[in-house]
Amino acid sequence: MAGTDTKRTPKVYLIRHSETEWSKSGQFTSSTDLELTPNGVERITVLGEKLHTIINFDKIKYIFSSPRRRAKDTKDLIFNKKDLEHCNFIVDDDLKEWEYGQYEGLLTKQILAMRKEQGLGESWNIWNEGCKNEFNPKAESTEEIGFRLWKFIKKIQRIQEAGMQTKENCDIVIFAHGHCLRYLAALWFMSVNLCNKFDKGLIEGPSEVNGCAKLVKLVDNNMDIFDFKNKFVEENYLDESFRIKDQEKLPYYVHLIDNPWFMLDAGGVTCLSYSHHSIKEPSLKLNLLEL
Amino acid sequence: MAGTDTKRTPKVYLIRHSETEWSKSGQFTSSTDLELTPNGVERITVLGEKLHTIINFDKIKYIFSSPRRRAKDTKDLIFNKKDLEHCNFIVDDDLKEWEYGQYEGLLTKQILAMRKEQGLGESWNIWNEGCKNEFNPKAESTEEIGFRLWKFIKKIQRIQEAGMQTKENCDIVIFAHGHCLRYLAALWFMSVNLCNKFDKGLIEGPSEVNGCAKLVKLVDNNMDIFDFKNKFVEENYLDESFRIKDQEKLPYYVHLIDNPWFMLDAGGVTCLSYSHHSIKEPSLKLNLLEL
Repeated sequence: MAGTDTKRTPKVYLIRHSETEWSKSGQFTSSTDLELTPNGVERITVLGEKLHTIINFDKIKYIFSSPRRRAKDTKDLIFNKKDLEHCNFIVDDDLKEWEYGQYEGLLTKQILAMRKEQGLGESWNIWNEGCKNEFNPKAESTEEIGFRLWKFIKKIQRIQEAGMQTKENCDIVIFAHGHCLRYLAALWFMSVNLCNKFDKGLIEGPSEVNGCAKLVKLVDNNMDIFDFKNKFVEENYLDESFRIKDQEKLPYYVHLIDNPWFMLDAGGVTCLSYSHHSIKEPSLKLNLLEL
Repeated sequence: MAGTDTKRTPKVYLIRHSETEWSKSGQFTSSTDLELTPNGVERITVLGEKLHTIINFDKIKYIFSSPRRRAKDTKDLIFNKKDLEHCNFIVDDDLKEWEYGQYEGLLTKQILAMRKEQGLGESWNIWNEGCKNEFNPKAESTEEIGFRLWKFIKKIQRIQEAGMQTKENCDIVIFAHGHCLRYLAALWFMSVNLCNKFDKGLIEGPSEVNGCAKLVKLVDNNMDIFDFKNKFVEENYLDESFRIKDQEKLPYYVHLIDNPWFMLDAGGVTCLSYSHHSIKEPSLKLNLLEL
């Protein structure tokens, strides 16, 4: 097996918020702004102590959070004031949980019963079918959450690409939600082969599918991805050196069409990185815990 | 998001052996029986202390290891005598590293140069092309390593299926190698949709491919997977209650055809489990570190 790279490759830590009453009961929770339970507070505090022995907090440059208080409170219980001295903290709407619409607050079995009554069938694959339909128009489709998480990924990969060039610390920590973080992790690496083919001109979106994810070419509605100005931002802002860079547009995005078969429990932590120290090879780092 | 399951779902921890001279230098290491470096010994000892604060060692029933000393020595440095009182330790040939043949001891760039000279092209995807070819007949193809790792997965899933039924602890720890563990993790969850389709009679091997893995139906050469008798076994053996069960045959197996885009550094640790407490839904647990 290949040995240790002498260059330090940046990492992205994903942390799911700690326990709420609804995460405990299994109710779908997106926009409802619940607080952590006392048990959730206690356990995330213990986790924070363990994280300080495993993660090198000095390497962290940016902390991103969903706008929901359960995510922000989880961050406050893990990061102390000293940890934050060299970090920028950014609240980003792209990290909010999947918009469930009328499924908000329901249990899976209740959603299945509702869909059956609406004539939408007896089974439901949220990754492929999403939540939006004629009965639930305010919910998000898998294309919609896929698009905003793709935008978010491109933002942080640009930050880390710059960090690799300047050899500055640019580890990132993200506080968000169960579905949204599993989706993000799957896009991070399941899309690699699709993107490689598109970049080499071998395929054009949206016709090509690899069994896990679908690529969509953006022509008219390509989006600026580096305009943070309209974001709700707390505490610190990004570096000036980063902020003044030109806007960048997305030529395409990828969304899921298959279940990522990932688990991420309340308070769970995992890690993303890049193979061969290359921004073009986003990888899932199987080992959070390492030497 | 769905809440915490009240039943305890078994876990499989994957631990890559600690540093050797060749893992440090990046030389391909399969059958060469290297020892750990002093640095590798020191760092895996520190990791073992951390693991004792994160993993519940009392839940572990079986420890499997590759036959190589770097894997077994890593196990000895993590597990102390007390940890092992309730565990069975099994050395399993199915966990040996990919057989590289004539690539053994070489660096990636040396292998690429050799293959170019042999007229095998300038690029090389080990996951798809494997190591076996007319110039390297004693090496393993991706089908061969895929088959033995599939057998191994079926063995441990049978142990855990029984444990879920009897509600006995049946967590498993595996000590092995970089390529082999990444392959195993990819098979664990990338094969789910292929297997579901096969089990429902929707596809027949080997024609169906999902972009990541390929399913092969076994007709004449279906293999007994639960005959441990010919294995080299150390310390304890499996429970009598498990050993006397009927042999089971494999109706099919799955091997990789695509890069799993996973990273697992020397001494790295990750975790596999099952979604919805179901043996039919093997999943990658993104969070090794949890509440």
